[in-house]
Amino acid sequence: MSSPSTGTERPLEALVGRSIGAELPSELEELLPPLMQDLREIDARLEQVLQATYPQLTQAARYACQGGGKRIRPLLMAVALRALGADSTRSVHSLAAAFQLIHTATLVHDDVIDHAELRRGRASVPRAFGLPVAIVTGDYLFVRAFELAAEYPRGIILRCGEACADLAEGEVLESGARFDLTTGRAHYFRVVERKTAAIVSAALASVAEIGGGGPPAVDAYAEYGRSVGIAFQLRDDVLDLYGDPDLLGKPLFSDLREGNPTLVALEAHAALSGPEKGEFERLFAIRRKQSGDLLRLKELTERAGAPERVGEEARRWAERAVHALTPIPPGPYRSLLEHLARAAVARRF
Amino acid sequence: MSSPSTGTERPLEALVGRSIGAELPSELEELLPPLMQDLREIDARLEQVLQATYPQLTQAARYACQGGGKRIRPLLMAVALRALGADSTRSVHSLAAAFQLIHTATLVHDDVIDHAELRRGRASVPRAFGLPVAIVTGDYLFVRAFELAAEYPRGIILRCGEACADLAEGEVLESGARFDLTTGRAHYFRVVERKTAAIVSAALASVAEIGGGGPPAVDAYAEYGRSVGIAFQLRDDVLDLYGDPDLLGKPLFSDLREGNPTLVALEAHAALSGPEKGEFERLFAIRRKQSGDLLRLKELTERAGAPERVGEEARRWAERAVHALTPIPPGPYRSLLEHLARAAVARRF
Repeated sequence: MSSPSTGTERPLEALVGRSIGAELPSELEELLPPLMQDLREIDARLEQVLQATYPQLTQAARYACQGGGKRIRPLLMAVALRALGADSTRSVHSLAAAFQLIHTATLVHDDVIDHAELRRGRASVPRAFGLPVAIVTGDYLFVRAFELAAEYPRGIILRCGEACADLAEGEVLESGARFDLTTGRAHYFRVVERKTAAIVSAALASVAEIGGGGPPAVDAYAEYGRSVGIAFQLRDDVLDLYGDPDLLGKPLFSDLREGNPTLVALEAHAALSGPEKGEFERLFAIRRKQSGDLLRLKELTERAGAPERVGEEARRWAERAVHALTPIPPGPYRSLLEHLARAAVARRF
Repeated sequence: MSSPSTGTERPLEALVGRSIGAELPSELEELLPPLMQDLREIDARLEQVLQATYPQLTQAARYACQGGGKRIRPLLMAVALRALGADSTRSVHSLAAAFQLIHTATLVHDDVIDHAELRRGRASVPRAFGLPVAIVTGDYLFVRAFELAAEYPRGIILRCGEACADLAEGEVLESGARFDLTTGRAHYFRVVERKTAAIVSAALASVAEIGGGGPPAVDAYAEYGRSVGIAFQLRDDVLDLYGDPDLLGKPLFSDLREGNPTLVALEAHAALSGPEKGEFERLFAIRRKQSGDLLRLKELTERAGAPERVGEEARRWAERAVHALTPIPPGPYRSLLEHLARAAVARRF
């Protein structure tokens, strides 16, 4: 397929490696080959769904799905199913592909809303294909996701739908709070619960249901998914200041530029006082920030100790995720879920 | 609910009256009270789905659904089910609400793509709520539609999904052909089949399946829906030149302004020759047309006899729809389906 891609494709192993982190204990290393195979099969299921005869949409839809990011969602789903004793993850391949498509659809529409130029190190879909194609491609990916979800019992389709509705609500909540530092922590967590945590929680709760884990496993995975989602988002907020833009695939300071009141910004604002607080407010409110503005905001954020405090808070959510796994039978796959929660808050991309 | 509405709400009867047309034979008049009740119950089902606790989205979503247009889709579905002998249409209420939501979601995203200011006589959703909310509201309506569709067997969900994919493909095909008169009739019908006909066809085929009509009824309704959809769109093309803007709820010449190569424009262009053809091409290609440009384009279109020829073509599609009904048991409801197909191409709004 020819595409207006400007980036290079990274192999699946390298991408997934970012979700797993550098320091995987050697006894968990041996779990990776079957999981990589799971992810390849989920990718293949997704490819298959996008092979339909929609010549206008197929190119943009596949472009949007290419690369596919760190695969944290399908990886968590595959590990979670195996932790319940499953020998194969085939029963969740379509659902994992559906959640990947929903995630991708949201990214495409987010990039329209944010006028984002870059995504995963190359032109965003609206940049590469224009706004009309980007909007419709997002819709198309949602439709394909629901077709995949239709393979499952109604309860799972509805859980998936509610998570999508949460996600939409979270996006509107977020877009209404731009450049506004008065929204506060409670509002921040309302957004994150809906925009990031709900979909991971729904995906993992569905895995527990499909895997026959019973209500304790469903609740455990719902809570694990929610906590991992929140931890992940908190780490993302910090990485907006300290990440490696090449690995992130987008420029640093994107949140500051778009005026997102991340927890880092809210904590900094709350901790500063006097003229520094006033300066922070003034700089944060600038619609087209210059490099100097961004660097000064970062400096003030650091003086307030905000990145460290948010980093600690992320680690607390990761431990909460680990704790939520208590009802799951102990074993190497449960250990890997614990590892993945902690890796989410230690990652640098 | 408070809303930034600027228009007045028209009663359901008046809106549905536009789908039924003025000259309903008296023996069919008596079918209307139960059908109006069906439509009210479908509206109630839709309202119910939008009552979920999504404060940010609920307002925009309900605004988008308010008025609800001429109700041609739910009306056709209710009549089609009754034509198969059903005493109640309860079994298709959720599906009809789902198709209304899908239709509405598409209109919201269309208005983003087209930068439309007006829809159904009042501010469009992007105009009233801003682009971010409009994009996410469209997504939310799709999600709710699929949740409603999840009440039905998988075959119906998939048919509904394929129609949505067709619709998305049609929109991209259409948006890529703006200001281009060289696309031709075949391209035009490819767009209309996907963008307008597929969803009506899928809705009615699903009704046949739910109503237990068997494969002949499924095929008959699929073909009837497809033909009515095409007839409807052809009439829409003519009404862009001759409609009543107050009743249409949007300004005349919208297609010409947006550079849509409607069948009227394509027929005019094909029939004109010499300097008039050149003038038509030049005016059609103007991105910001003045009133004089639009009136001259209308004049050239009339000189070419295009509106009459497209009107005739619309009537042929309506007759094709009527003919497709042959396998359906004769009776007053089948007669009403015939009447509705013919009313679609006689309407003035």
